[in-house]
Amino acid sequence: MDIESLRAAHPDHWKMAAAIRTLTLDAVAAAKSGHSGMPMGMADIATVLYRNHMSFDPLAPNWPNRDRFILSNGHGSMLLYSLLHLTGYEQMTLQQLKDFRQWGARTAGHPEYGHAEGIETTTGPLGQGIANSVGFAIAEEALRARFGAKVMNHWTYVMAGDGCLMEGVSHEAISLAGHQKLGRLVVFFDDNGITIDGKVSLADITDQPKRFEAAGWHVQSIDGHDPEAIDAAIVAAKADPRPSMIACKTHIALGHAAQDTAKGHGALTDLDQLAAAKEVYGWGYGPFEIPADVKQMWEALGTRGAEARAAWQGRVDAMQAGPRARFEAAISGTLPRKLTGTIRALKKQMSETAPSLATRASSQKVLEVVNPVVLETLGGSADLTGSNNTLTADLGIFDAENRKGRYIHYGIREHGMAAAMNGIALHGGVRPYGGTFMVFSDYARGAMRLSAVMGAPVIYVLSHDSIGLGEDGPTHQPVEHLAMMRATPNTIVLRPADAVEVAEAWEIALERKDGPTVLALSRQNLPTLRTEHKNRNLAARGAYVLAESEATRKAILMASGSEVSVAMEAKALLEAEGIGTRVVSVPSMELFAAQEESYRKRVLSGGAVRVAIEAGVRQPWDRWLLGERGREAKAGFVGMEGFGASAPAETLFEKFGITAEATAAQVRTLLG
Amino acid sequence: MDIESLRAAHPDHWKMAAAIRTLTLDAVAAAKSGHSGMPMGMADIATVLYRNHMSFDPLAPNWPNRDRFILSNGHGSMLLYSLLHLTGYEQMTLQQLKDFRQWGARTAGHPEYGHAEGIETTTGPLGQGIANSVGFAIAEEALRARFGAKVMNHWTYVMAGDGCLMEGVSHEAISLAGHQKLGRLVVFFDDNGITIDGKVSLADITDQPKRFEAAGWHVQSIDGHDPEAIDAAIVAAKADPRPSMIACKTHIALGHAAQDTAKGHGALTDLDQLAAAKEVYGWGYGPFEIPADVKQMWEALGTRGAEARAAWQGRVDAMQAGPRARFEAAISGTLPRKLTGTIRALKKQMSETAPSLATRASSQKVLEVVNPVVLETLGGSADLTGSNNTLTADLGIFDAENRKGRYIHYGIREHGMAAAMNGIALHGGVRPYGGTFMVFSDYARGAMRLSAVMGAPVIYVLSHDSIGLGEDGPTHQPVEHLAMMRATPNTIVLRPADAVEVAEAWEIALERKDGPTVLALSRQNLPTLRTEHKNRNLAARGAYVLAESEATRKAILMASGSEVSVAMEAKALLEAEGIGTRVVSVPSMELFAAQEESYRKRVLSGGAVRVAIEAGVRQPWDRWLLGERGREAKAGFVGMEGFGASAPAETLFEKFGITAEATAAQVRTLLG
Repeated sequence: MDIESLRAAHPDHWKMAAAIRTLTLDAVAAAKSGHSGMPMGMADIATVLYRNHMSFDPLAPNWPNRDRFILSNGHGSMLLYSLLHLTGYEQMTLQQLKDFRQWGARTAGHPEYGHAEGIETTTGPLGQGIANSVGFAIAEEALRARFGAKVMNHWTYVMAGDGCLMEGVSHEAISLAGHQKLGRLVVFFDDNGITIDGKVSLADITDQPKRFEAAGWHVQSIDGHDPEAIDAAIVAAKADPRPSMIACKTHIALGHAAQDTAKGHGALTDLDQLAAAKEVYGWGYGPFEIPADVKQMWEALGTRGAEARAAWQGRVDAMQAGPRARFEAAISGTLPRKLTGTIRALKKQMSETAPSLATRASSQKVLEVVNPVVLETLGGSADLTGSNNTLTADLGIFDAENRKGRYIHYGIREHGMAAAMNGIALHGGVRPYGGTFMVFSDYARGAMRLSAVMGAPVIYVLSHDSIGLGEDGPTHQPVEHLAMMRATPNTIVLRPADAVEVAEAWEIALERKDGPTVLALSRQNLPTLRTEHKNRNLAARGAYVLAESEATRKAILMASGSEVSVAMEAKALLEAEGIGTRVVSVPSMELFAAQEESYRKRVLSGGAVRVAIEAGVRQPWDRWLLGERGREAKAGFVGMEGFGASAPAETLFEKFGITAEATAAQVRTLLG
Repeated sequence: MDIESLRAAHPDHWKMAAAIRTLTLDAVAAAKSGHSGMPMGMADIATVLYRNHMSFDPLAPNWPNRDRFILSNGHGSMLLYSLLHLTGYEQMTLQQLKDFRQWGARTAGHPEYGHAEGIETTTGPLGQGIANSVGFAIAEEALRARFGAKVMNHWTYVMAGDGCLMEGVSHEAISLAGHQKLGRLVVFFDDNGITIDGKVSLADITDQPKRFEAAGWHVQSIDGHDPEAIDAAIVAAKADPRPSMIACKTHIALGHAAQDTAKGHGALTDLDQLAAAKEVYGWGYGPFEIPADVKQMWEALGTRGAEARAAWQGRVDAMQAGPRARFEAAISGTLPRKLTGTIRALKKQMSETAPSLATRASSQKVLEVVNPVVLETLGGSADLTGSNNTLTADLGIFDAENRKGRYIHYGIREHGMAAAMNGIALHGGVRPYGGTFMVFSDYARGAMRLSAVMGAPVIYVLSHDSIGLGEDGPTHQPVEHLAMMRATPNTIVLRPADAVEVAEAWEIALERKDGPTVLALSRQNLPTLRTEHKNRNLAARGAYVLAESEATRKAILMASGSEVSVAMEAKALLEAEGIGTRVVSVPSMELFAAQEESYRKRVLSGGAVRVAIEAGVRQPWDRWLLGERGREAKAGFVGMEGFGASAPAETLFEKFGITAEATAAQVRTLLG
């Protein structure tokens, strides 16, 4: 790489890019950890993108129509932090850069959504950013179709490395984007030929441009250090109606002794080598020192963005009152006032008609009244639409021909769907929900965890939530998944027992703004248990007394979802023998755990025998069986100990002993 | 589709294929559930493959050199069951077909490994089969290189559908196979244009042939109902040194009223339509009726295989005694006798020298003595070799140029690695282990669950197992993962506390034959706690008294992995105050749960205050804190309640309160 001539040919560009490179070197040296090579390799691309294309306003970081910049190779976080600091984001002070990777700093090892304005999404687990970006581009298309290009009309730019492109989720993302013809999505592939283990060729020979072409993308290959080539490629990418991938040949750790090596991927902390690199860059400044003229050139980009934002605000102000109110409500995530009444009316109807319905089917009934009221919902399924019951008649299909559609055929891409939903949720203005079989949440785990880490309000509709799935067998029957999701912080798992609880669960999910909600739904029909209407959302307390004991209380049965009706049957058996039995429905352990102790004590009073019933593993139930005034000698569990089997659902419940009779028998044994 | 002329042109072929189609129709109709369309669409391909190419012996189903047939689109299980029945596998009786999808039958909804001979792997979750197949092909290459083509020299054939190819794991699999130039891998893509939601074009426009070419595959496109074209394509595929993909245009549910529709994907149970389809096929037989001439043609294929097997046995018998013994030991999975001594010697050395080592580093020390002794190990990492410490000097790199190498650079493909390891383990003759950061087990979940479902002895080396990972932050720090893996049936999770326990953990993992083992290893250095050598494998009991109380026992501290040394420090603090404290090391909850009660009682005696310490969520600990004679009022937990953060590891333990001081304080509080 002839750095000398690059510097000479584009002196301003070079200085601006060198600021990123040297801030990176200084921050990693200060932290004695981090990843130097990527920001040093991609600084030229970032500089051209921000200088000539990115529309953003550091003084209004959440401007809804800003271009989105997503760093999928998130280990190169210093690139993003440098850009935010240089362009003048208030929260990204120089001190933050000096505190890179330290406790309490906004400058975490990988970009963490919410830590600082300008960080659009949390990246780090490779492939997630590029998969999120598909969601950002979908949200933009949906909002542009709904509100017009005058107020929604932006680009989504992504940087991605070899690692992102090797991960399976990238395949799901790029094929979804190609199918959806997301023309406002531009991906820069950092083609530096280096991974942690060494050269990419140790593990991969993929022709990435050809692969993207096969997925329906517009593809270019350029020198990632040539500012003119970078700019021309971005111009061409924007002109093409397809999503664009620009393969950029770059040198990792450009200009450093570790250039083009796996060592260059990591933390370059040797101070002599650091000084030598600065010399190569022609950068005669001390640690964290940015000369005023360079800072000024960077800040001027924000000023340009501020003008664009002001013009945009003028167009919003000029909107008619109705559309404007709807636009602002969408952007702020405000739910329509009538949602509460809509849900209540449905609950009342369900209590009165008491249908026998699978909770996946009652979920559809809820969506049928919710979707016409909450116009921000964007539904979908990973090719299980008829099974997840996620489509309602009013939605229409979102695709390249119909951007007003509100339902996405995500294809057989659970991980891509979940990651896209993260992007949709983070973009704002749209509320994503998506369905698959609960067991295939395994495939989506990487993105579901990030929903929780980021606090993204994504709604996961997971049907077929137990052996009740039946004949498809153990690979399709979740057993450990409720435990897994309950073990995941900031995830609310709701497993409603009947149509009324399903309506309440949807209300909770839609009202949640700070994290994902999982709706665990049955394949099989379930009776309506809540036949007395209550306006109050009982599921919101996590657990509640569904049926009080008739005789003197000797037992408490706890259950969730499809097993609550088993508990009710067991109660009938026990009461017939004079054993007073309370049934506690537990739609959500997380919400119950959040209640004040006095309430928990009322619901799970001490003294009685406790048996929990759930067609899953026991692990998460120990807390409620043995803790909360429970006692080992007086506690039992009716559920699964291993994987399921292939047979009709009723046979499986019988064979695995998840029945009212088995429950009653366990209570009798515990009563001694 | 002009079925009439197909029948006329290839009468024998047609009848043999019709047997598959009609058995499928009959079995699905009997079960009133299942998937008819795929076997009806792919019957021609299966017939040509079995007739002209597959080498197998129904009387010796586990013949090590048999060709492997893998049904990645496992919902088409009736294709496989039909083949096994028709060719004469003893276990696959006609009654089994009649009991399709019923309790206790071998004929589960999806093919389940172990349910019947001839089922090479469990498929159903889409994409897993094609990803397993890469492992089968790797195992074949490795064994051929080690023992010669006379005794190991077979093909791996795979059927895969649109769903398999949309899943992200397929990308990881095909790019790994392309890089590894697995020329003995042949994939038939069932290009029928239909998924559950409708036409593939609803969700996908991928040019699959081009995509496979981009990954380095040999690609052909054919009419999947033309026997001559199918045969010619297989011949060409075998002649090419690259892995081969044959895109087969097929008609789902061929010849049925539901042909070429999404309905055809599912259960076709209408008896009139069934009869009409049989008429189209020219099949004048009753339910489950196979005419003798057709059965005979199918059985003859097995006879051909028996001859091949006899010839192979002759070549094995002719091997020199040494190589033959090694070959047979490898195939049977027998561990060398000296392994026990090797592990003991290392343990002794570790106890005597008492190094301070990260458990990932002591894991490497174990591998350095194990790999030269257990020549079947095939290691690898998902691009974190230097971090997982999975490579030892003697292994060499397995790639197209060196099939004798025993270490695979899997690339940044955690899911592909796990699925390939499943295939390697199921093939036999080779013992796979592979590393990544524990948090990225999220990406591999789909395949890790299948290791457990199938009982595949895969060893997962998961380093950086807590916030001890440090600066990379919450996306890289597992918190809920130990709970998740412990919640998964048939998975043994081992989190060793020091170098000695690491050696014991590896011994347990290597000796395990019926399921996966997870080794959870620290990034950070840990002191050696087992300074007194014991021959016995203490970790094998799951939990044991590491240090007895000096003063009268008032407290029991339980911990795993890196927190056992925290417990030891807390004990020192408490004993200094006269509070007798026992420290129980808990390397594996599963193994401890499997001990007889008297032992568990000895280790976790009642009466004392109990505090568990683990840098993860509490969920799996409730059982040991509150159960097993524990009491809520006398139990505490020192661990994580939410996600981690980015900072140096020591800071994180301090800030999250996972320290000896915090532990001692909790004990004091509980003692009141």
